[in-house]
Amino acid sequence: MATFDLAEHPHRRFNPLTGEWVLVSPHRSKRPWQGQQEEQPHDSRPAYDPTCYLCPGNTRASGEQNPAYATTFVFNNDFGALQDGIPEGAYVAGDLIRAESERGICRVICFSPRHDLTLAEMSTADIRKVVDLWQKEYAELSSLDYINYVQIFENKGSIMGCSNPHPHGQVWAQSTVPVEPAKETTQQAQYFAHHSRSLLADYLQLELKLQERVVVENEHFVVLVPFWAVWPFETIVISKRHFQHIGQMTDAEKDGFSKVLQALTVTYDRVFGVSFPYSCGIHQSPTDGQEHPGWHFHMHFYPPLLRSATVKKFMVGYEMMGNPQRDITPEAAARVLRGLVEAT
Amino acid sequence: MATFDLAEHPHRRFNPLTGEWVLVSPHRSKRPWQGQQEEQPHDSRPAYDPTCYLCPGNTRASGEQNPAYATTFVFNNDFGALQDGIPEGAYVAGDLIRAESERGICRVICFSPRHDLTLAEMSTADIRKVVDLWQKEYAELSSLDYINYVQIFENKGSIMGCSNPHPHGQVWAQSTVPVEPAKETTQQAQYFAHHSRSLLADYLQLELKLQERVVVENEHFVVLVPFWAVWPFETIVISKRHFQHIGQMTDAEKDGFSKVLQALTVTYDRVFGVSFPYSCGIHQSPTDGQEHPGWHFHMHFYPPLLRSATVKKFMVGYEMMGNPQRDITPEAAARVLRGLVEAT
Ligand SMILES: O=P(O)(O)O[C@H]1O[C@H](CO)[C@@H](O)[C@H](O)[C@H]1O
Ligand SMILES: O=P(O)(O)O[C@H]1O[C@H](CO)[C@@H](O)[C@H](O)[C@H]1O
Repeated sequence: MATFDLAEHPHRRFNPLTGEWVLVSPHRSKRPWQGQQEEQPHDSRPAYDPTCYLCPGNTRASGEQNPAYATTFVFNNDFGALQDGIPEGAYVAGDLIRAESERGICRVICFSPRHDLTLAEMSTADIRKVVDLWQKEYAELSSLDYINYVQIFENKGSIMGCSNPHPHGQVWAQSTVPVEPAKETTQQAQYFAHHSRSLLADYLQLELKLQERVVVENEHFVVLVPFWAVWPFETIVISKRHFQHIGQMTDAEKDGFSKVLQALTVTYDRVFGVSFPYSCGIHQSPTDGQEHPGWHFHMHFYPPLLRSATVKKFMVGYEMMGNPQRDITPEAAARVLRGLVEAT
Repeated sequence: MATFDLAEHPHRRFNPLTGEWVLVSPHRSKRPWQGQQEEQPHDSRPAYDPTCYLCPGNTRASGEQNPAYATTFVFNNDFGALQDGIPEGAYVAGDLIRAESERGICRVICFSPRHDLTLAEMSTADIRKVVDLWQKEYAELSSLDYINYVQIFENKGSIMGCSNPHPHGQVWAQSTVPVEPAKETTQQAQYFAHHSRSLLADYLQLELKLQERVVVENEHFVVLVPFWAVWPFETIVISKRHFQHIGQMTDAEKDGFSKVLQALTVTYDRVFGVSFPYSCGIHQSPTDGQEHPGWHFHMHFYPPLLRSATVKKFMVGYEMMGNPQRDITPEAAARVLRGLVEAT
């Protein structure tokens, strides 16, 4: 019998950050597709849209008017999923019915006054302003006593549920640590307790040696397709220095981060020749006053497209009931991305 | 200050089956929507489609010809994510890079020879034939030594990644227990160890008393919106008798199951006046030769539509990075569904 081959045979891969597995089916990209095709979003947007509630000077649903901002702009979401001044309390019926009130703040961050840009189309200097604002928001929100986690993220593209094409991201800050960072907290703490090194520092070392899944790097950051990637062209951005959260980023690191984000988003847009949809988000230590020495700052990019600008990967039946499943291997995806990176 | 109100204030709910939480934002359904609208699939299909690879008598991509089947039909997926005869093996590089080969079988189950039907449009007697086939498949696959979990599921609707509208479901059987049933195995075993009763039996008792989230029931099964539901109109079908897997279903229970599936799918189609998309799947005990006395057979329905036939809930940025979030409460969803159930 042939020997097991990662590039040929179905297998499971372990995600040490969550402790969970993903099913990889390398042979499967050949199956025929008669399913849903996404509409290609029309990409000609005006630089200013009078009906957009994020453009400078416009009035939002709440009746508030945006300032005539020239770089970035942040405001509390008028329809936030989390709210600040709600009463504390719990609802419990028996052992198995348990709810707890949850306080928090949802903010919207406009990346640019220009309605027609994306991160990939902004200059490094302008991306740097977004990074600066993330840092400022993190500092401000984490200083609130009742905030124990700050989730910074972006949904890009209508296929990713983005309800307005104006370039923007969000920050949701809340009293409890959400499920995904909670898993990463446990896994990284365990690893640190055993090795006195961060899990991601060790992982990064391995990947830099192997050079099979690395996409692009600079002095401060590495972008790679993680061995356990779920989404077809998923990547992770890892800081070379081991630090816990964006509040600790130096000026030089913020420049490095801006550059690597630009390189990555520009590369993504080349994969299928369209503005590449994704959800991305920063994972960092909880702001609960604990130390978290094992936590290692990183950012995830989860893009849904699989074969073309119009065919995405569906995480549905088996994936919802069983576990995530992917078709092309992370190594193949990394090769595609690496081949499209511009010399930086 | 007002007191905490489940119907008003953002809160978290605990899912005892997985040990994870969901964020509920009852006030949030009011936000404006400028995002993606799904195309309404055209619903006039012929009873027989000569180009469909699932219709009776047609030839599949593999070159094989379907029989002229009159009820249900099952075959091994020509492009299965899992394969049988692959070599065992592992790939390990350092501590943090781990893969293992995974053996399995993927089958496709045609629910009906009619290209134009859905479960909701089939007679109870014909749904019963699908249930019979699920039972038969479970028995056959679980008898294979190397199969330790059998996942039965259906993706319905192009919005759920269904690549062919002919009514069909799938069975993926494999050597390891996937992530979701593994969580449920742990949680149910723990509960059983403490209470000597099944978690879902106790939960069902509570819900039948409260009557707030129950949608429909008969002698053998109850459909309800679980307290911890993630998807807007998510439901769970729980057997009144505590048994572990579909292999143990009696004839009367199979009739009851068929009836309740019909009632539920017919109800779903009434919510927005369209054939309601969803992914559904059966969770049951692993077929690993262990006892699993705590396991309690159930079926999940995860439908994505939120506000209309064309606006779905996106599980994206915050949900991917943090945890699932929902807008309408499970109680409100249950009221809608209950109001649409036909007298059975
Ligand atoms: O097997 P199908 O119908 O071709 O494919 C569909 O269901 C599978 C199992 O949930 C998913 O992995 C695919 O992403 C989805 O498109
Ligand atoms: O906040 P938005 O852009 O209106 O909404 C989008 O992002 C949110 C956070 O990931 C999700 O909960 C919504 O389902 C999605 O449509």
